[in-house]
Amino acid sequence: MMQPLIVIADNLQITNKIIEKAIANYGSGPIITMIKKCEAAGAMAIDINSGPLSRNPKKKMAFLVNTIQKETNLPVIIDTANPEAICAGLRANRKKAIINGFSLEPGKLEKILPMAKQFNTDIIGYLLHPDGHVPANASDRLQIAVEIFKACENAGIDKNRLIIDPVLPPITWENGQFQAMEVLSVIKFLPELLDFPVRTVVGLSNLTAGNGEREKKLLLERSYLPMLCAAGLSMVLVNIFHHETIKVAKACNAIMNKDIFTWEEI
Amino acid sequence: MMQPLIVIADNLQITNKIIEKAIANYGSGPIITMIKKCEAAGAMAIDINSGPLSRNPKKKMAFLVNTIQKETNLPVIIDTANPEAICAGLRANRKKAIINGFSLEPGKLEKILPMAKQFNTDIIGYLLHPDGHVPANASDRLQIAVEIFKACENAGIDKNRLIIDPVLPPITWENGQFQAMEVLSVIKFLPELLDFPVRTVVGLSNLTAGNGEREKKLLLERSYLPMLCAAGLSMVLVNIFHHETIKVAKACNAIMNKDIFTWEEI
Repeated sequence: MMQPLIVIADNLQITNKIIEKAIANYGSGPIITMIKKCEAAGAMAIDINSGPLSRNPKKKMAFLVNTIQKETNLPVIIDTANPEAICAGLRANRKKAIINGFSLEPGKLEKILPMAKQFNTDIIGYLLHPDGHVPANASDRLQIAVEIFKACENAGIDKNRLIIDPVLPPITWENGQFQAMEVLSVIKFLPELLDFPVRTVVGLSNLTAGNGEREKKLLLERSYLPMLCAAGLSMVLVNIFHHETIKVAKACNAIMNKDIFTWEEI
Repeated sequence: MMQPLIVIADNLQITNKIIEKAIANYGSGPIITMIKKCEAAGAMAIDINSGPLSRNPKKKMAFLVNTIQKETNLPVIIDTANPEAICAGLRANRKKAIINGFSLEPGKLEKILPMAKQFNTDIIGYLLHPDGHVPANASDRLQIAVEIFKACENAGIDKNRLIIDPVLPPITWENGQFQAMEVLSVIKFLPELLDFPVRTVVGLSNLTAGNGEREKKLLLERSYLPMLCAAGLSMVLVNIFHHETIKVAKACNAIMNKDIFTWEEI
């Protein structure tokens, strides 16, 4: 049974100067304003992209999770490579949290993966080679997915806790179009390969990372999104203020929904 | 190898009062104006939806084909159920013409299909039951596709002349969403089933036929179009003046293209 696509706001990120400053100063005002705007724009979850938080990682991530969860019941996605910060975020969590994420990189397997078991939360696994390289094609990704799946099993994590990110490279890469099509195949084929309805997530803006006109980038993203939906994608990380993209996500859900169609859904 | 999606303008149709009048009076001016606008808007082929042409079908279709082909080199799609009109259009044709189309309906099998052989042209086959009913699901459509394929073989028509229209029902039908997904499966599976890269065509506006707000209809159409593209659709009939939809079609071609990606394509 096809579940509706879950739209995750990627707007709370350290690359936003206002957010950067708010995190540095523990200023809850700008965080709350952002969360309110994200929820109003249709966010179904909030990605906390805090960067590595090299100074005071525990205090800062706990501050972020606390501040956000006072404001909203939406799930939070703890999006940092710093295990200390992840751990502090999970300790602070009083609602629903997702770890974003781990890969076959040894440090992540050892330090991040076990937290999904310890805190009984969902965790995103990236289909990257152990050295961090992006796989060349669908077949490499599927092989890595099996390794990721086994790593979860070995860590005693319920398979239903796993969410797979097939890793979408920029379309401007030499083989970017091929990779975009391979990502679709991976999303389609994963449930059959792993023999359960494994969830998947993609960061949509990765498609257009790098140079390019804003309007063309947005057009490309909202043209690729329905392809992802039709392939069976479960969740998408998007700039929630890209209203046309969010409208397309809603339209895709209306098209693929199993209930009776009504124009009100769109 | 994936070919780019071919965008066919569905704008030259009898339901347009200006076109209706121009056909009735053999007025070439409005036809030429329309063709120029369609070509400027990005049409790669022109559908001549003349209706049944109950009076003077031969003279009228010949007039249409002649008028259009004086103006443009784009292929013309002769879109009428009247065999006499089709025949006259094919006789008038001096460039590339496609017959639109036939089905398992006995009259069409006998009178329309043989013209693809006689005039050595492409022909669109509709996946409809012999009584004109829309199939209930993908499996029924695939069974009909095999019958359509056999009918072409029996008529001595080169299989590469066949273009299949899986017949997309309105999303507002009771099972409209299911049908929209089944149409995607059919497009994906047909080349494997028939064991050659059979081309497919869909009338995009069929998805939103009936009541509904214009803006919501357009949003739905341009959200479904990338799903069709990713499934491998060869041609789409669209209102070529829906610029956002045409931009999405171009973006899909840029994403799925096998050449090096450049922003200039979009």
